[in-house]
Amino acid sequence: MAAAKNAFYAQSGGVTAVINASACGVIETARQHGDRIANVYAGRNGIIGALTEDLIDTSQESDADIAALRHTPSGAFGSCRYKLKGLEESKAEYQRLIEIFKAHDIGYFFYNGGGDSADTCHKVSQLSESMGFPIQAIHVPKTVDNDLPITDVCPGFGSVAKYIATSLREASFDVCSMARTSTKVFVLEVMGRHAGWIAAAGGLAADASTDIPIVILFPEVEFNQDAFLQQVREKVEQYEYCSIVVSEGAHWPDGKFLAEQGTRDAFGHAQLGGAAPVVANMVKEALGYKFHWAVADYLQRAARHIASKTDVEQAYALGKSAVDMALAGDNAVMPTIVRKSDEPYSWEIGQAKLEDVANKEKMMPAEFISEDGFGITAACRRYLTPLILGEDYPPYDNGLPAYIRLKNKPVAKILNTAFDI
Amino acid sequence: MAAAKNAFYAQSGGVTAVINASACGVIETARQHGDRIANVYAGRNGIIGALTEDLIDTSQESDADIAALRHTPSGAFGSCRYKLKGLEESKAEYQRLIEIFKAHDIGYFFYNGGGDSADTCHKVSQLSESMGFPIQAIHVPKTVDNDLPITDVCPGFGSVAKYIATSLREASFDVCSMARTSTKVFVLEVMGRHAGWIAAAGGLAADASTDIPIVILFPEVEFNQDAFLQQVREKVEQYEYCSIVVSEGAHWPDGKFLAEQGTRDAFGHAQLGGAAPVVANMVKEALGYKFHWAVADYLQRAARHIASKTDVEQAYALGKSAVDMALAGDNAVMPTIVRKSDEPYSWEIGQAKLEDVANKEKMMPAEFISEDGFGITAACRRYLTPLILGEDYPPYDNGLPAYIRLKNKPVAKILNTAFDI
Repeated sequence: MAAAKNAFYAQSGGVTAVINASACGVIETARQHGDRIANVYAGRNGIIGALTEDLIDTSQESDADIAALRHTPSGAFGSCRYKLKGLEESKAEYQRLIEIFKAHDIGYFFYNGGGDSADTCHKVSQLSESMGFPIQAIHVPKTVDNDLPITDVCPGFGSVAKYIATSLREASFDVCSMARTSTKVFVLEVMGRHAGWIAAAGGLAADASTDIPIVILFPEVEFNQDAFLQQVREKVEQYEYCSIVVSEGAHWPDGKFLAEQGTRDAFGHAQLGGAAPVVANMVKEALGYKFHWAVADYLQRAARHIASKTDVEQAYALGKSAVDMALAGDNAVMPTIVRKSDEPYSWEIGQAKLEDVANKEKMMPAEFISEDGFGITAACRRYLTPLILGEDYPPYDNGLPAYIRLKNKPVAKILNTAFDI
Repeated sequence: MAAAKNAFYAQSGGVTAVINASACGVIETARQHGDRIANVYAGRNGIIGALTEDLIDTSQESDADIAALRHTPSGAFGSCRYKLKGLEESKAEYQRLIEIFKAHDIGYFFYNGGGDSADTCHKVSQLSESMGFPIQAIHVPKTVDNDLPITDVCPGFGSVAKYIATSLREASFDVCSMARTSTKVFVLEVMGRHAGWIAAAGGLAADASTDIPIVILFPEVEFNQDAFLQQVREKVEQYEYCSIVVSEGAHWPDGKFLAEQGTRDAFGHAQLGGAAPVVANMVKEALGYKFHWAVADYLQRAARHIASKTDVEQAYALGKSAVDMALAGDNAVMPTIVRKSDEPYSWEIGQAKLEDVANKEKMMPAEFISEDGFGITAACRRYLTPLILGEDYPPYDNGLPAYIRLKNKPVAKILNTAFDI
């Protein structure tokens, strides 16, 4: 058997409530195979850590602390927004990666991110062929946007969906209580600039047992102000109140986001507003209803306290499977979630080739949006519901979730040469 | 023993994650004393239900459904913003209340609300003397603003505090992950127009085990832009990121709210914005840091999924004690929380006279705000920490909290006369 090599692991792009569960899966599984994987080095702040030789020695962390990653949101090693381009265009960076990997005896590359990262991971997998450096590159999927192809779902999304559906249900109960003499309309702005997966999750707040009037503004549907106001009016007339979910990506027919309503501050500067206040004020002006609005922003993707157990388990399993695949000799692949059945929900791990994943976005199918454009269909509900199943509470200390901060000790530099990023 | 009388119960003002736990305490305790309290009639939409003879017959609800109120946020019978004035000024309304109470044989009045409701409750307690109608009026405290006097804490506040501290910790972990190449500043806007109790709770996100740089903008401290920006700059320089909590009541020295920054929409209309985007843009303009911001709004006060167990227990106990006090012959009182010790935390039920409660606001003591005006002191932390202790998760169904919707069947009208509200 070949001598053990080190593994490199990095988190990329926007973090989630469960990306650390994938890290936990990678590191715990690697520790079980010390004969093949000597050590897992994590990139401090993602791939930047590799380029600047700023590696974190995860072997300095206790088993208990690594296990605690499973219940800790955010990116424990730091993430970054830094996209490597093509092998030719970003040649200096790929050469630098090879130098670093050689210096630190790295034979496995685990990259935990979304579509752009899958593309980078794919290019790293080709280094062996194009630059003569043998490395196995496995992508671990992650994105609250849920827009990676092939995999049934992306880790991080299920927990956001559970947070949004729960929060909207709770706020809707609140508005319902107040509607007679006060607030009649509640607007919740959610993430998802290109795809309405998260907005759709708001629709789950209402179900057979809990009737709630909900109007959803998807990025997939051009905003029609008249039709929207009519929806709201009808719902308020029937229920006395209405809840509205607006995606940050909701836009007018000309492509302009609702959030960019030409709002100016006292000095005439364009003001970054948010879609929720725009929509709320629009309703107030047209229909006179008193409103409240909320913008969940990072709260939604960081809300580990109400993570979906399904999501946590899948995030961990994908991290674990990435290592298993590497040990099986795979390269240029990504473990995926394969749905076996909706109800009872069952799933298993599959595998996709990175050439089929990179640079492809999975949009929400048209049949998931109701005909009027403001709600979700039964098919959408069948897809979404299993993803929010189960609770997986973190431990609490002094009334607050006890999230781990790792020591993140650096690996001693070997090259010690500067590299500008 | 006198014949059993009916009880009237109503919810007033903004609802909370635990006001229904108080309702549960009232109704369950009343049910144990059927010989004295025949039935609990709830006002539909608060006191308006009494004025319009729109009473809800809680005896139509099963024991299991009443028990489920304990884990259901919002006001199960509807609330309202409707303030009765003085006995002379609002004479017609008080006379109407007496008519309704006589017609429905009501001998107990339980009013679940904040300061204004305590005042109304106090006036109802005087009906016996002033208008010759014997009724015992007991106020059950409730307000996320935590501004009632005498009681150590107001039910609803502890759960908001837990939600805000948890959410800020989670979002701060997120920003910390991203800070190297992306977001460096996160701004969370919280409720509390007059008092900074909720803003202060944001300070709990950081503790001995979890170092997080937090800057708080309290309504109690006049906004000083230079000092604020210096705080943010210093924290970003030290930590690479900074979290900011801004109270909706934060204001300039001239009293103008930060939220009212003279923002105008494309048509020149004043735009209701929110303090968070104003603060975020201010930081961006002065220091150039990339930001994200969130406005929690109703999500914070409705978040039963992360309620404080202490808060739930106290809300229930106060509802129960209100009935116990009524049965003991008390009138014009409010059960209170009396703190016996900070650590280990212990408390018991006390009693306040409504004449001492009505129209008094409890502001945050100056010694709870750090000298620089941007943080909380150890004394504040000692006060707040016990209030968020313990978790009390609701049951889940299909991945979402299973909150109860009562049948809310009306009591047959006896007077059946119109009353304009």
